[in-house]
Amino acid sequence: MYDGIVQDLIDEFGRLPGIGPKSAQRIAFHILQTQNFDVARLAELLVEVREKVRFCEVCGNITEQERCAICRDPRRDQGVICVVEEPKDVVAIERTRQFRGVYHVLGGAISPIDGIGPDDLSIPALMRRLSVGSGEEPVREVIIATDPNLEGEATAAYLSRLLTSIEIPVSRLASGLPVGGDLEFADEVTLGRAFEGRRRVE
Amino acid sequence: MYDGIVQDLIDEFGRLPGIGPKSAQRIAFHILQTQNFDVARLAELLVEVREKVRFCEVCGNITEQERCAICRDPRRDQGVICVVEEPKDVVAIERTRQFRGVYHVLGGAISPIDGIGPDDLSIPALMRRLSVGSGEEPVREVIIATDPNLEGEATAAYLSRLLTSIEIPVSRLASGLPVGGDLEFADEVTLGRAFEGRRRVE
Repeated sequence: MYDGIVQDLIDEFGRLPGIGPKSAQRIAFHILQTQNFDVARLAELLVEVREKVRFCEVCGNITEQERCAICRDPRRDQGVICVVEEPKDVVAIERTRQFRGVYHVLGGAISPIDGIGPDDLSIPALMRRLSVGSGEEPVREVIIATDPNLEGEATAAYLSRLLTSIEIPVSRLASGLPVGGDLEFADEVTLGRAFEGRRRVE
Repeated sequence: MYDGIVQDLIDEFGRLPGIGPKSAQRIAFHILQTQNFDVARLAELLVEVREKVRFCEVCGNITEQERCAICRDPRRDQGVICVVEEPKDVVAIERTRQFRGVYHVLGGAISPIDGIGPDDLSIPALMRRLSVGSGEEPVREVIIATDPNLEGEATAAYLSRLLTSIEIPVSRLASGLPVGGDLEFADEVTLGRAFEGRRRVE
């Protein structure tokens, strides 16, 4: 539709997730017309990120070094491993400032529809980590923190079964009503879980 | 939140229009994890677009040459000028394949709230074009095709007043019901316009 490279740029942006043709066009024009938008910086970062960022050889989180900042941190408890699907889940949990253990990033969740089975995730690496111990010390606890959706639940169920063979306590994050939400707006599955998981007031 | 350049990339994407922090994060991870996404190509295009793309010296449309493809096309009628706000409006009108004249891109619309007055748009250039003629021949008609919103209407009204001094017929695109839409879903302003602009069936 446009002359040459403008259309190429629109097409290239349109290939990114969540960006339709209209947004891609808007972004391309923003880049064209906004002089204080630093295109060189964005261009540089794109190439740099692909070159420098890799996955932590211990936990699979993203890092610019061999081991990620969390695995390198001596104050973190290497005896407690929280299993998550993606690096962004690590960030979400870190934001709570409640967890002082380390992570294991699976790289996704089991999803037969998308053709993702246990072997496509870093489950073998997790099992190795659990058998030889994480860092200096043996693993004392595994917390499964996969997403509370179909794929995440399937992955959690698979892992729980697998981990019964190893004598380490395994837990799963609680499901229930979101804090700050209204009970009447909770879907029935969440409300059902909240009942199942009810805790005695002391 | 993330280590170094990953966060930098997320921040940079977050500065683009219509991309919030969550989308920016999703895009950054897509770029990191999808091996067949050509980062080098996107990086190259970003820099190239800013370097090579400029505005047509006649009409203000985007081009990689001095004059845009439409202004250069000898088959286009230089005697009819369609006035639009942005280069993307040119593309939208070209898609109809109904207009064979040339364009004048204002570079926006009058918007006192955003501090954009007539002098911030290429209205003086339009007036020059109308007085000296466009290309070889004198201008016979001006069609105002600004957006049918507050700013576009204000711009159209301003231009109409300004153009009464020059003896060239000026028209404005029709407002009315969108083709393929349902009457019951039309807003009252559009429906009102459709009544005002009703045409006799022959």
